[in-house]
Amino acid sequence: MPKVTEEHRLARRQQIVAAARRCVIEQGFHKTTMAEVIRESGLSAGAVYGYFKSKEEIVAAIADDALSAVDELFQKVLATEAPLTPVAALEMALNHVVTVAERPDGDVTRVAIQAWAEALRNPAIMATAQGKYHQLRDNFEAVARRAQADGTVDPDADPRYIGQVLFGFLPGFILQRLILGDVTPETYLAGLKALFRS
Amino acid sequence: MPKVTEEHRLARRQQIVAAARRCVIEQGFHKTTMAEVIRESGLSAGAVYGYFKSKEEIVAAIADDALSAVDELFQKVLATEAPLTPVAALEMALNHVVTVAERPDGDVTRVAIQAWAEALRNPAIMATAQGKYHQLRDNFEAVARRAQADGTVDPDADPRYIGQVLFGFLPGFILQRLILGDVTPETYLAGLKALFRS
Repeated sequence: MPKVTEEHRLARRQQIVAAARRCVIEQGFHKTTMAEVIRESGLSAGAVYGYFKSKEEIVAAIADDALSAVDELFQKVLATEAPLTPVAALEMALNHVVTVAERPDGDVTRVAIQAWAEALRNPAIMATAQGKYHQLRDNFEAVARRAQADGTVDPDADPRYIGQVLFGFLPGFILQRLILGDVTPETYLAGLKALFRS
Repeated sequence: MPKVTEEHRLARRQQIVAAARRCVIEQGFHKTTMAEVIRESGLSAGAVYGYFKSKEEIVAAIADDALSAVDELFQKVLATEAPLTPVAALEMALNHVVTVAERPDGDVTRVAIQAWAEALRNPAIMATAQGKYHQLRDNFEAVARRAQADGTVDPDADPRYIGQVLFGFLPGFILQRLILGDVTPETYLAGLKALFRS
């Protein structure tokens, strides 16, 4: 038996997830089959089944991957020392959405929209979506608290509710970008600045 | 042959659409079959096929129905004589979303989320979504113009971009309501009021 390093295993797993993502973007969760993922990955059936025992396991992995796409953003956003306004945080978030959407291995925002639909009937994907989106919203709530401490947002407002609204911008942006095709971070920010206090 | 009135035809069609909606909420677009829609409708197969020749036609009809759920709102919103702020328009829109979601014949917002996913791969549903959402966004743009005329929003801002942002609130609200379950028009409006100028 060859000695397989952890790094090699992770790269292989990523290769399979990327292949599955391409299949799902093309055909949706329901029509994608294990045979297609195997063919798209360029690996043997045995290799793929060594990582994922069933289509359900692959669907869970790519949904997790798509719903995690914004996770990495907030380390950067919350690490800034300067006053952090809601508009500045949204600017970083919207630019990040476009960056991950335009990566060459497939637009994860397309997979995220399918994961939303799937979550409504698949308890495992619902649990993933709830965990990821609670965490993302907590980060927007932290932005609200920072802005309240900086004096750019009313300190008497409930930061949880401000977090709901800030988080709620992202699905609307993602959906308009894919369905109407004419929104960019720049147009959205122009609209936001006209509406927001700060 | 019995004489079938137009009213009777419309009521029958609505009965089939409502049955299909219940099936799709339960199982999604892909797993729903004509046989299940027929059973759920309580009509004969011949009666159902008299209205919809295929599952594709039924899917198109319930997607259209779900994506139209907010249409009726704007006649009321734009008819108001009083100054119309973006917050007031969003308050009416969010309350309307909850009203249509809680109708006894099935939560159309669940069908709308599935229609978003389906639109990415089904050109007919994409065309419906584009038409409906352009129209809805035009209505939010009209709200922005009203607010600019009333002096509550910066008259130099582009109302199209304000319309993008206002329209973009609805998907985020719908998604959080179904996945995280803790948003209401009241919590959202509290967050909005803390962030918005007016």
